[in-house]
Amino acid sequence: MFLFVNTYIMHHHSRIGIIGAGPAGLTLALLLQRSGIPCVILENRSRDYVESRVRAGLLEQNTVDLLQELGAGARLAAEGLEHHGVIFSFNGNRIRVPFDELTGGRRITIYGQQEVVKDLIATVLSRGIDIHFEAEATAIEGIDSTQSAIHFTQNGAAHTLRCDVVAGCDGFHGISRKTMPPGSYREFRHEYPFSWLGILANIAPSSDELIYAYHERGFALHSLRSPSVSRLYLQVDNEDKIDAWPDERIWEELSIRLGTEGWSLQSGPIFEKTITPMRSFMIDNMQHGRLFLAGDAAHIVPPTGGKGLNLAVADIRWLAQALIHFYDTQQNDLLEQYSTNCLRRIWRAQDFSNFMTRLFHKQAEHGSYENLLQKAKFDYIGSSQAQATTIAENYVGLKDI
Amino acid sequence: MFLFVNTYIMHHHSRIGIIGAGPAGLTLALLLQRSGIPCVILENRSRDYVESRVRAGLLEQNTVDLLQELGAGARLAAEGLEHHGVIFSFNGNRIRVPFDELTGGRRITIYGQQEVVKDLIATVLSRGIDIHFEAEATAIEGIDSTQSAIHFTQNGAAHTLRCDVVAGCDGFHGISRKTMPPGSYREFRHEYPFSWLGILANIAPSSDELIYAYHERGFALHSLRSPSVSRLYLQVDNEDKIDAWPDERIWEELSIRLGTEGWSLQSGPIFEKTITPMRSFMIDNMQHGRLFLAGDAAHIVPPTGGKGLNLAVADIRWLAQALIHFYDTQQNDLLEQYSTNCLRRIWRAQDFSNFMTRLFHKQAEHGSYENLLQKAKFDYIGSSQAQATTIAENYVGLKDI
Repeated sequence: MFLFVNTYIMHHHSRIGIIGAGPAGLTLALLLQRSGIPCVILENRSRDYVESRVRAGLLEQNTVDLLQELGAGARLAAEGLEHHGVIFSFNGNRIRVPFDELTGGRRITIYGQQEVVKDLIATVLSRGIDIHFEAEATAIEGIDSTQSAIHFTQNGAAHTLRCDVVAGCDGFHGISRKTMPPGSYREFRHEYPFSWLGILANIAPSSDELIYAYHERGFALHSLRSPSVSRLYLQVDNEDKIDAWPDERIWEELSIRLGTEGWSLQSGPIFEKTITPMRSFMIDNMQHGRLFLAGDAAHIVPPTGGKGLNLAVADIRWLAQALIHFYDTQQNDLLEQYSTNCLRRIWRAQDFSNFMTRLFHKQAEHGSYENLLQKAKFDYIGSSQAQATTIAENYVGLKDI
Repeated sequence: MFLFVNTYIMHHHSRIGIIGAGPAGLTLALLLQRSGIPCVILENRSRDYVESRVRAGLLEQNTVDLLQELGAGARLAAEGLEHHGVIFSFNGNRIRVPFDELTGGRRITIYGQQEVVKDLIATVLSRGIDIHFEAEATAIEGIDSTQSAIHFTQNGAAHTLRCDVVAGCDGFHGISRKTMPPGSYREFRHEYPFSWLGILANIAPSSDELIYAYHERGFALHSLRSPSVSRLYLQVDNEDKIDAWPDERIWEELSIRLGTEGWSLQSGPIFEKTITPMRSFMIDNMQHGRLFLAGDAAHIVPPTGGKGLNLAVADIRWLAQALIHFYDTQQNDLLEQYSTNCLRRIWRAQDFSNFMTRLFHKQAEHGSYENLLQKAKFDYIGSSQAQATTIAENYVGLKDI
């Protein structure tokens, strides 16, 4: 029989099976290990793959704090770029939302998700936590009982991991959500009528802070990954093809949309180019029996608010707290409230991401009533400290929900 | 020839012709008279009619301050009901937005528009300002020159009022906007897919403060006119007919939609019942030559934010300031900026009124993604001081725009 099962039977441990070695699964493992709760991580991709997968790059203060707390934040502290504000542009007219004075010193940190994953994996391995790459979970069993099992294949062989609890951190396409019984949750989907063309380029950022721009030609975002790598995005049609966007066209369009007097965008060699549809997805119940979903397995937000990775980590805070309480006290109460606790923040993030998306994307004709309402909202951010604070507090991450 | 013209010619006065004796026209007359600028008001309805026409009843702090400043606020101070907060309900779950702490002591005052009009007319008459009731403006001439004329009929006879400037305060259906040359402005219209059934009832209000309620059956608003008169509203279909709403049905529906545990709605004799469509309207230029539009002549907002009357008075502040400056200095600059100055506040009010309307009306299916985003916005008002402040500051009236 497979080693894990033998180990489990021999030691009679309480044990968590974590599916997915993204930020959610890895963070959960570290939180559990710190409290002496054994767990195993199964990841269907290779270590190399997950360590180089380009995703988000904007960390909320909450996320940074947790990574530090877990001892996985040394490189983040050294290399992460702290941002104390963000720039909003409306057809070339810029305003800045300062975080420090509006949120009592909170901020965001720019640090690629793949770097977070590298740091977390290194920490997980250094703590002796079992992590299995290229181990594909194929079925989850027994979530209605107190003894669950995750069937998985590795190196062509079939294995079974028995555990008390399954943490489904396996993303939107993973098997965890599909294992939830029909009728145990409702699904919500919203597709936006536009996509993002995103590039990575070997060029120093042209701005120290992110620039979110509405332009009558469409949305653009100036972001960065490091002092030498820029990350930029353009609103394109859902039907747009990458072939229609040679590098020169991308830079020209970015220049126009992000432009303002006395500033120019520096261009450089593009080394990644992708088109991503913009959508919202969520379910209204993230648990059934001994199965708990976290992160993308349960919710997707459009990237405009930078919330995806941070929401995953927020879910894990609740899940870890509930599991630790369960093993301490044998009480189910926090586990039972898990989904409800997570959903408050998820709905807030859905609303904020939706607000940011609608604020900056071209939807109605430029100069139409709907478009001028967009401009009125933009102007209000520039004129009202209260409104600017709502942006800042959501952006750096709300503390109390 | 008509007396006014004689007077004008004899005295060689600079003079403003004001069309409309609503809050805008009356306030303008008092501001001008105080600065020694002669004006004449032409109102096509009778004094009785305008003094009993039921309209808005929510005065911003700015509006109250101006009425006091003009010496038209004695009865308002005695009889107006100051509100220090407003209650929001989402399917029976209530939160309160307190104005005092969020806006530095600003508030709203409940006082019927017809009472405002009575007080303003009495003040206008006491200052010896020319006001002509049942005087219907039929044409405006010469707005491209320095000598304009308003043709009007009174008691079956045709008259002409010559003036330097025409102030079009004659509402949505008046001739002032229609006199603006084609192409001198763009029009924006938004029709909402629901209407308000409004009632006045002889019953003491069941709540000291206004209650805005989303309910899965639709929006309801508990408001009041005085300590003995309640003003209540229900969201109904645009096709709904007043005959389909006998009093008992109205009270029953109000009870359900406004209801919360431990509170009950008191019903009483209904003495007015109307259905009003919800719409937004505005133009992007409120002036041409010597014609200046103010109030409903230039913009309509849905009543959800209580902004209509207050916007009209805000327009008049800009117009009076510009006219006084013009007669003091012979400089056109403030007159030229009139429309631009007004439009900032108007767009803000359009956005706020739209926000309030969408927050509380039933639009999508109850429990759908769109509806749960509505709930997320509602919950955010309850959990974020910044978000509650945006509501409070817009509701009591922004100071600096």
